Amino acid sequence: MIDQLINKIKKTEAPIVVGLDPTMKFVPEHIKKQAFAEYGETGKGAAQAVWLYNKAIIDAVYDLIPAVKPQIAMYEQFGVEGLITFQKTVEYCKEKGLVVIGDIKRGDIGSTSEAYAVGHLGKVQVGSTWCRGFDEDFVTVNPYLGSDGVKPFIKVCQEEKKGIFVLVKTSNPSSGEFQDRLVRCGTKEEEGTDRPLYEIVGEQVAAWGSECMGDSYSYVGAVVGATYPEQGRILREIMPKAYILVPGYGAQGGKGADLVHFFNQDGLGAIINSSRGIIAAYQQEQYAQYGAQNFADASRAAVLAMKEDIAQALAARG
Amino acid sequence: MIDQLINKIKKTEAPIVVGLDPTMKFVPEHIKKQAFAEYGETGKGAAQAVWLYNKAIIDAVYDLIPAVKPQIAMYEQFGVEGLITFQKTVEYCKEKGLVVIGDIKRGDIGSTSEAYAVGHLGKVQVGSTWCRGFDEDFVTVNPYLGSDGVKPFIKVCQEEKKGIFVLVKTSNPSSGEFQDRLVRCGTKEEEGTDRPLYEIVGEQVAAWGSECMGDSYSYVGAVVGATYPEQGRILREIMPKAYILVPGYGAQGGKGADLVHFFNQDGLGAIINSSRGIIAAYQQEQYAQYGAQNFADASRAAVLAMKEDIAQALAARG
Repeated sequence: MIDQLINKIKKTEAPIVVGLDPTMKFVPEHIKKQAFAEYGETGKGAAQAVWLYNKAIIDAVYDLIPAVKPQIAMYEQFGVEGLITFQKTVEYCKEKGLVVIGDIKRGDIGSTSEAYAVGHLGKVQVGSTWCRGFDEDFVTVNPYLGSDGVKPFIKVCQEEKKGIFVLVKTSNPSSGEFQDRLVRCGTKEEEGTDRPLYEIVGEQVAAWGSECMGDSYSYVGAVVGATYPEQGRILREIMPKAYILVPGYGAQGGKGADLVHFFNQDGLGAIINSSRGIIAAYQQEQYAQYGAQNFADASRAAVLAMKEDIAQALAARG
Repeated sequence: MIDQLINKIKKTEAPIVVGLDPTMKFVPEHIKKQAFAEYGETGKGAAQAVWLYNKAIIDAVYDLIPAVKPQIAMYEQFGVEGLITFQKTVEYCKEKGLVVIGDIKRGDIGSTSEAYAVGHLGKVQVGSTWCRGFDEDFVTVNPYLGSDGVKPFIKVCQEEKKGIFVLVKTSNPSSGEFQDRLVRCGTKEEEGTDRPLYEIVGEQVAAWGSECMGDSYSYVGAVVGATYPEQGRILREIMPKAYILVPGYGAQGGKGADLVHFFNQDGLGAIINSSRGIIAAYQQEQYAQYGAQNFADASRAAVLAMKEDIAQALAARG
């Protein structure tokens, strides 16, 4: 699947993933009205509104991009009904030929991570048959529990030819609170060997990934926020074969020029996510002329602008 | 809700939580047969089997215990159908008067953690009304993203009078891989100030919790594995007002005598989880005489034995 993702990135010339992270305040009024008329102001009505909204955006942008990243929390907030929309969204995106990265940030003790892995990437035995749950192509994984919590995902990826992105340095303002802590790496006498926790996690990602190679990149990737370009440069070196999923572009403050450090010299190795910046483009001044009725066209314009911004930044690097 | 949990612990004289972590290999054949006859060997059939299994166990033990802890991964593995059973289980346990700790280990950037928090503990606005998702009483939270990722949960807890348990030192064998890393806390010249990451996280839990007090304990608690009693002792001191949720008793290797360090001198401050050891008791030699037909009675016997084991250990401490 990592090879398939890379091929699609090359074909679309867009190292871009659109984050399908809907909240009710992004969904245009006319969509909400339609959904609530059918199912009322209920969890089911909200889930239907999100589905109509997602579908319109996917239809408007699927030919421009290699992948989407639905954030499961935004569906889980509506309970079971929201998760039905999550599943429909995953299925629909796959039908449209998109690679689906489930942003689930799961991670637990071994037997529990195994359950998450089969539920999101694999299949579970029921009597004499096997059933699939959410069936994304990639998922994001939280490393706090160590190898026990990550390896069950890798095992399922090997069986299913799928992949993961492990959280290394996240895009949020407080990510440094624990991730930037300096970890003692040598004896007290050895100076200059202390390194931040995210580097230690990055090294472990490289180690996990070395056994899991596609043609040129590993299917064990990493998440590193666009908001931390300097750390991105260092992590790029520590994990040369890991694809880096880069959130934080656009609404969270990351800019095109910040992104070049996340790419290797082959122009590959990173895929940049934008969520609000694309799906709620119509609410920005820049795309206001589209109006709420044409929100999906505004999303398409925002994808094209993002593609251009990244291409220019990479070209400027030379 | 922390006060309600403590009252129930006192009333039942059982600082015990039963982990409702069903897998298909725990569910007795006659239950599977019944469920598959109704819904086939499908995700829905598996979810129905889990529901029948859970209900029988809850009915057999609810009067002995203060709380249950369903592990959502074990439901999520069956996709949406599994999550319908998760929701039914949460609702049924609350009807039975049990406190429900959703073991979800979520944690993300601020806006996303907010969505998880409202979906699991609070309510979300849909048009002019508010809808509830899974509506547990407590959830577990992963701290890797720092305060941004935790505070949205705390905010919803304040509004809803609910609580969280933050992962500090987990019970699994590889938990030390990152959690035990020595973090530099002073200058290079200051000797002996380096401390493991779990202590730093524990201090932060105490800080978050100091603003969130119930009558005697905070509603920001911590998860510390029974398999690490020495770390438990230290963390007990670092977080004197945090309730500690202690997994790893029984099947994972933790013993009654290991648990005393997790309690304060008031006999409170900790709640011990057992999952497999209770719900799959009938598969153990010790309870084999019950047979698969009477699996729920075996679970009741195992709860009574666990209660006795912990009471003896606490009495021996004096």
